Amino acid sequence: MKEIVSLMDYRSSIKVVDATLRDGGLVNDFHFTDEFVRALYEANIRAGVDYMEMGYKASREMFDESKFGKWKFCDDDAIREIVGDNDTGLKIAVMADVGRCNYKKDIVSRSESPIDLIRVATYLNTIPAAADMIEDAKKKGYEVSCNIMAISSGQESDLRVALDILGKTSVDVFYIVDSYGSLYPEQIARIADTYMEFAGKYGKKLGIHAHNNQQLAFANTIEAVGDGVDWLDATYSGMGRGAGNCAMELLLGFLRNPKYNNFYVIQFIENYMNQLKEDGVVWGFDLQYMMTGLLNQHPRTAIQFTKERRKDYSEFYKEVVAQD
Amino acid sequence: MKEIVSLMDYRSSIKVVDATLRDGGLVNDFHFTDEFVRALYEANIRAGVDYMEMGYKASREMFDESKFGKWKFCDDDAIREIVGDNDTGLKIAVMADVGRCNYKKDIVSRSESPIDLIRVATYLNTIPAAADMIEDAKKKGYEVSCNIMAISSGQESDLRVALDILGKTSVDVFYIVDSYGSLYPEQIARIADTYMEFAGKYGKKLGIHAHNNQQLAFANTIEAVGDGVDWLDATYSGMGRGAGNCAMELLLGFLRNPKYNNFYVIQFIENYMNQLKEDGVVWGFDLQYMMTGLLNQHPRTAIQFTKERRKDYSEFYKEVVAQD
Repeated sequence: MKEIVSLMDYRSSIKVVDATLRDGGLVNDFHFTDEFVRALYEANIRAGVDYMEMGYKASREMFDESKFGKWKFCDDDAIREIVGDNDTGLKIAVMADVGRCNYKKDIVSRSESPIDLIRVATYLNTIPAAADMIEDAKKKGYEVSCNIMAISSGQESDLRVALDILGKTSVDVFYIVDSYGSLYPEQIARIADTYMEFAGKYGKKLGIHAHNNQQLAFANTIEAVGDGVDWLDATYSGMGRGAGNCAMELLLGFLRNPKYNNFYVIQFIENYMNQLKEDGVVWGFDLQYMMTGLLNQHPRTAIQFTKERRKDYSEFYKEVVAQD
Repeated sequence: MKEIVSLMDYRSSIKVVDATLRDGGLVNDFHFTDEFVRALYEANIRAGVDYMEMGYKASREMFDESKFGKWKFCDDDAIREIVGDNDTGLKIAVMADVGRCNYKKDIVSRSESPIDLIRVATYLNTIPAAADMIEDAKKKGYEVSCNIMAISSGQESDLRVALDILGKTSVDVFYIVDSYGSLYPEQIARIADTYMEFAGKYGKKLGIHAHNNQQLAFANTIEAVGDGVDWLDATYSGMGRGAGNCAMELLLGFLRNPKYNNFYVIQFIENYMNQLKEDGVVWGFDLQYMMTGLLNQHPRTAIQFTKERRKDYSEFYKEVVAQD
């Protein structure tokens, strides 16, 4: 049983990462207004959030610029238009997917960029490419984290090998990622234990990025806190692909560090997030996401169900149960 | 860390209690149609649910019959109209609140009633009255459980005394109740530990009734399962007062006992619960409930906020933070 003190006190090593623009951008193809992004930046500063992820550094050769908002590409100039010289306590992050980012060209030296943290995202079968991106970003002067996605459908033995390879790189943070929202807190505890073994061996920090398919994104995140995980992803109103993520308002309510102030999160939700919902942007827990989560499947079929505004949940259940 | 086997296998002592009509009735003043109730009864039977709570045995002297649907009062005849002789595996339950039920008169002998289980609900300051109701119901032949409400705002030492008094009664099940939705899984683990001490001493079973103010109703329920709690309350679509309860569809998805079949839950939600929502019945997680949960307050101010269709969340935050 965890120590009572850990619920009453706080651990100063904890970092909160706002992933609203990045994971939320997967919902609306990154079509956020500049006003929205500027207000979110201000809210994060006031709320004491540690990192703000602006979006992806996606390859323009792979993705058609006319189909996405600018936060799919996160040009340094676009970021500067929002944050200026960013003379604040809030650090700036972007995500770079293995195989979908021209990192050698599109990620310049940190001294010339408003970005502080490069978040490399990889699957278990592309770890060597992730390691190459990590070293490239490190050499350019960035803090670097690495998300290993979809671990719930991988083998534990492969995960151990991946953590050992990544441990030997100069990456700062390993992330536990529950891509399908299929994991229960007990499983998070066991996975954190595995991650902790390699984090201890190689002197790395741990992070968690949760999805809300089973209404467990927040529960899994605070379970991870109790297990020693320090870097916590959250999004305003839980905005994110499919069932969304751990809600920032729940997370800051939980954390006891006086530097965090949930009032500004609530104010931003009132002024901006609820408007998005009224405008028809749809995310969050619903039965179709629960089903793919339960079955440890990618949520793409559930996202399609949502897009088509289908309501025949029991028919969908039959479809996903039959998928191999 | 809990045993991996407990996520893969099942514990046959677990009982699932459908509280949709009772806690959900607090949302719509128990105005469910007979068709709805009959279909819910059928869905519970098919889904393998163990108990169905029909509503309250409320005193007609205290509550105006014209203002509530019949499930506020749960006359045996009204129940019989739905369940007949209830020649099924599903048992029938009602809730009886201390101080709000003429139990000596309104609860007849079990041999003359379709009811199997009386769920006595009490606060910490009315334990002797609860004990009297428990013995009355036991003498009449019922299974009896006891919900101790609002324990998150009581003293641990008082809770221990209450459990010791109740332990000496003939009650079958003690319930952990997170009335304000303020408890985290770590706290549930500690509370379950205390309850287990008295359950072991007196040979009682344990139950949990969770609220979803912080999106933890399901997480707290499965935490309790891991801690040895056997009786689990849930409601379809999480319908219940304010932020609602642990969702039946999440719970049956989690439990591995082959007697449970989530398909019929999903089908009922598709056919009936979503219609309730479309008709304007409002429940479920929202910021105002998170705030009262975080502050360990009764949700009545948040329910009022919802009723008035207020959207000024940050103003409400200032109001509840200022309340003592």
